[in-house]
Formats: sequence, C-alpha cells, structure tokens
Amino acid sequence: MPKTFLDRLCDSVLNPDILSKDENRDLIIRAIADTLAVAAAGFPEPVTRNVLKAYGGNGPVAWSGEPCESEEAAILVNGAAAHALDFDDVYLESMAHISTVLVPAVLRPSVNDPEAILEAFAAGLIAAKAVARRVGAGHYHKGFHGTATIGTFAAAAACGRLAGLTADEMANAFALAASMSAGLQVNFSTQTKPVHAGLAASAGYRAARLAKAGVTGSRDIFRERGYAALYGAGDGDDNPTDSAFELRPDMISVKLYPCCYASHRLVAIALDARSKIGASISDADTRYVMSVPASSISLLKHHRPQDSMQAKFSPTYPVAVALLRGTPTLADFADAAIADAQVASIIDRIEILEDDTQPSAGDIEFGTVTFTVMKEGHAPCVFTRSALPGSPLDPPAFAALREKFAGCLRIYNDTNRSSFPILERAGDLSLNRWLSN
Amino acid sequence: MPKTFLDRLCDSVLNPDILSKDENRDLIIRAIADTLAVAAAGFPEPVTRNVLKAYGGNGPVAWSGEPCESEEAAILVNGAAAHALDFDDVYLESMAHISTVLVPAVLRPSVNDPEAILEAFAAGLIAAKAVARRVGAGHYHKGFHGTATIGTFAAAAACGRLAGLTADEMANAFALAASMSAGLQVNFSTQTKPVHAGLAASAGYRAARLAKAGVTGSRDIFRERGYAALYGAGDGDDNPTDSAFELRPDMISVKLYPCCYASHRLVAIALDARSKIGASISDADTRYVMSVPASSISLLKHHRPQDSMQAKFSPTYPVAVALLRGTPTLADFADAAIADAQVASIIDRIEILEDDTQPSAGDIEFGTVTFTVMKEGHAPCVFTRSALPGSPLDPPAFAALREKFAGCLRIYNDTNRSSFPILERAGDLSLNRWLSN
Repeated sequence: MPKTFLDRLCDSVLNPDILSKDENRDLIIRAIADTLAVAAAGFPEPVTRNVLKAYGGNGPVAWSGEPCESEEAAILVNGAAAHALDFDDVYLESMAHISTVLVPAVLRPSVNDPEAILEAFAAGLIAAKAVARRVGAGHYHKGFHGTATIGTFAAAAACGRLAGLTADEMANAFALAASMSAGLQVNFSTQTKPVHAGLAASAGYRAARLAKAGVTGSRDIFRERGYAALYGAGDGDDNPTDSAFELRPDMISVKLYPCCYASHRLVAIALDARSKIGASISDADTRYVMSVPASSISLLKHHRPQDSMQAKFSPTYPVAVALLRGTPTLADFADAAIADAQVASIIDRIEILEDDTQPSAGDIEFGTVTFTVMKEGHAPCVFTRSALPGSPLDPPAFAALREKFAGCLRIYNDTNRSSFPILERAGDLSLNRWLSN
Repeated sequence: MPKTFLDRLCDSVLNPDILSKDENRDLIIRAIADTLAVAAAGFPEPVTRNVLKAYGGNGPVAWSGEPCESEEAAILVNGAAAHALDFDDVYLESMAHISTVLVPAVLRPSVNDPEAILEAFAAGLIAAKAVARRVGAGHYHKGFHGTATIGTFAAAAACGRLAGLTADEMANAFALAASMSAGLQVNFSTQTKPVHAGLAASAGYRAARLAKAGVTGSRDIFRERGYAALYGAGDGDDNPTDSAFELRPDMISVKLYPCCYASHRLVAIALDARSKIGASISDADTRYVMSVPASSISLLKHHRPQDSMQAKFSPTYPVAVALLRGTPTLADFADAAIADAQVASIIDRIEILEDDTQPSAGDIEFGTVTFTVMKEGHAPCVFTRSALPGSPLDPPAFAALREKFAGCLRIYNDTNRSSFPILERAGDLSLNRWLSN
C-alpha cells in the first residue's frame, strides 16, 4: 500500500539525520536568535503583560524569568511576547510566522539539550511546509491565520520529536493537533493576533504530550472530510512530491522593519531611492507614487494611521519614515511617534496605486513594485523591486541583523534594567555570534 | 446603529436574570447530575487515565480527587471523563454534547457558589444555541465536531460569566474563543473524540481568563471573513431572531443508552416492540427489518462490531441487546460483552434499510423509523416511532434516569472502592434528588 501523506509526514519529522547540513543548523540558530531578540522587545508590550497577568504563577519561568502557572503557560507567554511586535520572521512556504511558534515550543523550561532543540525546530519547519502544501494557499487567503493553524502542526512535530514519540504516537499527535488548529485573521490588529502564536505553540505541546501519554487519534485527518477539506479552499496538493517534506530553513525570511510584511517591499524601495538620492528625498517639494501589484497590500488598510497598531498595517507610514530617517525601527512605531508632523507631511505626498495588470491574489511576493520620485524642476526618478527584503532573493546583511537584534535587546534592558534572562540559559545554542547581551 | 450579533450574544449571556424560572434551574441541575454520573463511569476509562497521566501534578484536583498540574488541566481531565463513554447529554439545537463541556468549565476547583455555577451553565447554553444558529447546521454536516467547536464558545460564555466579565471583555473572550474553535469528526471513534470535550472546556476557560486580564480581540468575528464564513456551509442565519438567544434547558436531550445518539431511536423502537411482544421477541426463528430515514444513521458504520467502540457506533448491536435483554447498559458495551453469541445471532437476523423517500440530510431527528418483527407462522408486527428517546418529545422518566445515574456511580465505586469525590463538594447544588452516592 502506498504511504499516506500522514505516514510521510511522520517519517520526515522523525528522520534522525535532520541536521546533517551545517548551513541548516546555522540558519536555525539565526532564526532562534531573531525570535529571542524580538521577544525581548516584546516582553514589555501590553499583550505580553496581559497574558502574564492571566498565567503568572509559581511554576516554570517564561524567557523573562517571570514565573508562570505551568510549562504550558510559559509557552503561551513566550509565544505572545515573540509575536507582540510583528517583527519576527516569516516562512513564506508555510503562510506562517514560524519561529514565533517553534522557538517557544522547543526552548522551554524543561528542555536543555541544544542538539535536541535544533532537531525539534527542524522537525517543526518540515511539518509547517508539508501541511501548508497539503491544505493549499487558499487556506490563508480565505481568512485563516497560518501562524495559528499550521503553527499548531509545526509545534506538535517539534514537541513530538523532543518527546521521542514513535511514528504511531506522532500520527496521534498530528490528529490531536488537527483538532486544535484554529486562528482567524479577523483578529488581526488586536492583541489576539500575537496570542495566536502562544496558543499554537501550547496546543502543539499539548498534542504531543497527550499522544505520549497514549491518547489515540485518527489516521484519516488528511483524507475525506479531514483537515484540508474543512480548512482549505480546494487548492491543496493531495499527494505532494518529496520536496514538500524537505528541510529548508533557507526559506525563512527575516523581517528588517517592525511592521506588516506586506509593507516591506514598499519600505525597501523607498530606502533604495533614498540611498540613491540622499536625504533631500524627503524635501517638502517632492511627491511620490508607489505602484504595487493589485491586492498585494490588502492587509495594509490605514493610509493615515492614528496609532502604532494602525501604523504597522499602513502602506504609507513606514514608507514616509524610510524616506525621512532611513530604516524604520521600533522607536518609529511607538504611539508617540505616529503623530510626527514631518512624517505626516510626507504621507500627504505619497500616492499608492494598485496595478491591475499585476493581479497578486493577495500574494505579497508577486510581481514588481515601482516607486517614482518627482521633485519640482527635476526629471522623475523611477525605481523597481521584486524581491522581499530579508527573503532568500534579498537576504539580510549580517550587520543589519546584528543591529536589529541589539536594538531589540536594548529595549528589554532599558525597560527592565537587566539583560534578557533566557540568553544565559540559551548560551549553549551558540547564539553569541548574533546576540550579545 | 442596530446591535450586531456579537453585541446581542454578549447581552444575552450576561443577563443577570438568567435563572428566573424554577424549571430552568431544575433542568440544569438534572444536566449537571447526568454529567457527573457519566463522568464517574468515565474516570476508569483508558482515555481518562491517559489524560491524567499527561496532566497529573500537585495542583487542583479533578472530580476524582486526583491532583492535576493546574485548574486548566483539571478541566481537561474532567471533560474527557464526562465524554469518555458517549453517554452524556446532547443539546440538539447546538449540534453539541453541551453539558460535557459546560460542567467541567463551571464545576471546577476554585468555584464554590452554587448560584453562580447554575448561572454560568445557563450562559453557556445560550451561547451554544446562538452560535450554532449563526454558523448553520452545515457546520456539523461538513465534518466539524460541534461539541468541540461550538462548545468552546459555550465554555467561554460560562467562564466569562463566572469571572464577572464586562460586555466588552465578553466580546474579547468570544473573539479569543473563535480563534481556539476546533475539532474534527474524522477523529470520532478514537480517544481524541472524548478529549475534544476537555479541550473545548479548557479553551473556553482560557479565552475568558485572557479577556479578564485585558487581552483584546476583534468585534468582527461574526462578520465578513469571520467565523461563519470559515466554519460554515453558508446556511447560517446572519441575523437570527431573539429566540436564538433564549435559555432553553428543556431542549437538552438525555441519553438513556450508552451509544451513539443516532442509534437511539432504533433501540427505543426495539424496546417498544419487546415490551409489546415479550422476551420471545428474541427467539431464533424471528427476523427483523428496521427502516430508517436515509443517511440518518450515517455515523453508524459497524454492522457487525468487533469491539466496544465499534459497538457504540453500530446500527445493529444495541438493537440486538435491546431485543435480548432490554435497555442496553454500560456492561453491554464492555469489550468482553461484544462477542456474545446470542447477540451475534440476533444481529444476523436484523436487516437495516435506508428509506430514500425520507432523505434526512444527516439529521438524526428527521422522519419516522419503522420496525417490523417477523416470526414464522405469525403475521408481521409493525412498530413506528419519530421522537428521539430522552428528547423533549419523549422525555426521560425519573426512574430511568435515577437508574442510569446509579449504574454509573456503581462503576466508579466498584473500580475505586470509594464514592465519587466531587459529589461531596457538589452537595450544595441540590443534586441529591438525582444522585445518591
């Protein structure tokens, strides 16, 4: 009998040689460093404080050293912190912010073996890609939040591998994960969005834990009336090729600006233009036209944002910041910064056009962005860009990442007058190339 | 601006006069008694043992008195126990086993006020009916398990009411619940099915807890791209009448036989026939034809079941037991009982026909069941029945319930050589009319 998708999934995540390539190991370490850095900056955020208020206790500690009710509660808190600022990485192949789910699932109080942590992350990455392929991209486009839904399978794979599940138990863990997979995009731009990451991580942990204890599940979760039928839009691949199960941490895209990833090409092309033209690009007599593939920025609803959350989902605000000051940082998204009159003046001079000849179907990687800078008395300057910044087609520079990470850790240090506690414990993971506390 | 569905839902579950009718209070107490009884019998079951193995600890105790990792863990354990035997009640208006989710959510270690417990149960019942109406029956028919999905909203309402949430916080709790709503029917006839009840109860508790701590959610969960769009089949009611928000505990159907509710009309009509004809109905020269509305028994796949789980989802096994011995009991579904040769001989003489003139679309209440008994040398006897046993159209007799409950408690007592610990604590709920330990 040919192997089912579920059999292949279990095989691939339990493959013991998962880390045979050094570059994979390095990329996973980079992803962990990125996640911990953005979590450090996320711990002072209101959403993280709220989750800690609900789940604080006398048990295992969160990455901040704050004691929680249980290990599961610590996972929930860490996931919310890592996703609080929407500055964490994106695994485009899985329609999910993947590390914000996987790192809390694997870097938790009771787990100490660095090799096991890397292997578990790798297993989770494989599961995310494979399940995303099986359910189809329509899953995300119809309104499910992949980080929450597909993230649950990823966390189950990671925790299952850490728990040493057999193939049978791993199948049960996936069946339980399928029955815990949830998360709606309508909750975007509320605190529930970052909480999704913690919910997915803790649900995956719960699935693996129940399976380890002997709870059984169905072998049919990917067959008739199963996960793809209920969560998809009919565009999934019933029987994907082996490439769906390949470990590809090189496809993790790191965010260089702390705002919705749909805005990143717009920011990058503005930075391209600024680097060519110089600081005078923001002069008051200059106007800008940004042309984007149709519906590639449908998540960016706030042309003139009123608060930091709206600014993160704006097509103009981060562009204006980029033109005025260069690479947008977390400080640019503080509530107090949004009202900056200079930025507002630039926003008034930006026109965004959706190019109907490039229909993206919501895909933020699709087609080409064009940016035209018009200064009185000068010929218009035109810039174009296709690659997403931080993605494999435009990989992040080492220095830019180090700078991002240091900036994030500084926020933690300034708020707490201490360094980020988890970094001491995570020392064995060789993160110091990236993070110095 | 007219009130949205979410506004109306929050209003209705937070209505302080929720228990003004005495008969509602009595019916809720009956539902709690039923749930605790079936949970008592469910505690020795493998699934409950497994969940306790995963979530045992040194914290708050489950109903069995066994200490768990946390209150949330105790809720998970109690939910699995209550649903372990599939003997708990059904709220047909919500496509859900409702009490198996609500009682664990409200009768938990830190809650002591009997009045608050009853009010919280009432709030959960209202939410279950309203959300079910909003999402539409297609939700269940396409393959979601309402107990898990809709149950999460019900538990959020109940826990939110217990936590004293404001209307705003309750809206946030529902938004969080929408992002935790999950559970697939493909997991039926595995241990994940009863675990669904515990997952829904604990998810609802988590939603209310996070909302109480200040986590925000969207007001759009029932609008475009929201819950009904993603979890429904287009047959939901966008703007239901006020009756959708009415407290109707009289519509809770109590199960009198410990098997899938789709088999209950078949069992009842066999009992009707046995009571008319007498014990000779099971004589070896007798044959039986059961005619049922088409697809009303689609969940009953096992004509000749091999184990107790299959027997619970069989159209013939419980009928054969009813013909041979009268009302089926838990003992009839022990693995050892399934191989009984007398029962097997009766199964061989039962013919099940789906009546295509009565297409039920999967509805187990639809149309009429006919049972024909043919004994050599006699004219065939024909019986008909429409009402589901235990439902409002055929309410359970007091004596039958007392007998069911006593039988369930006896299983706990025989297994543990002690009485069911929660009953002592639940004394204030006036359960003694129903349960004597």
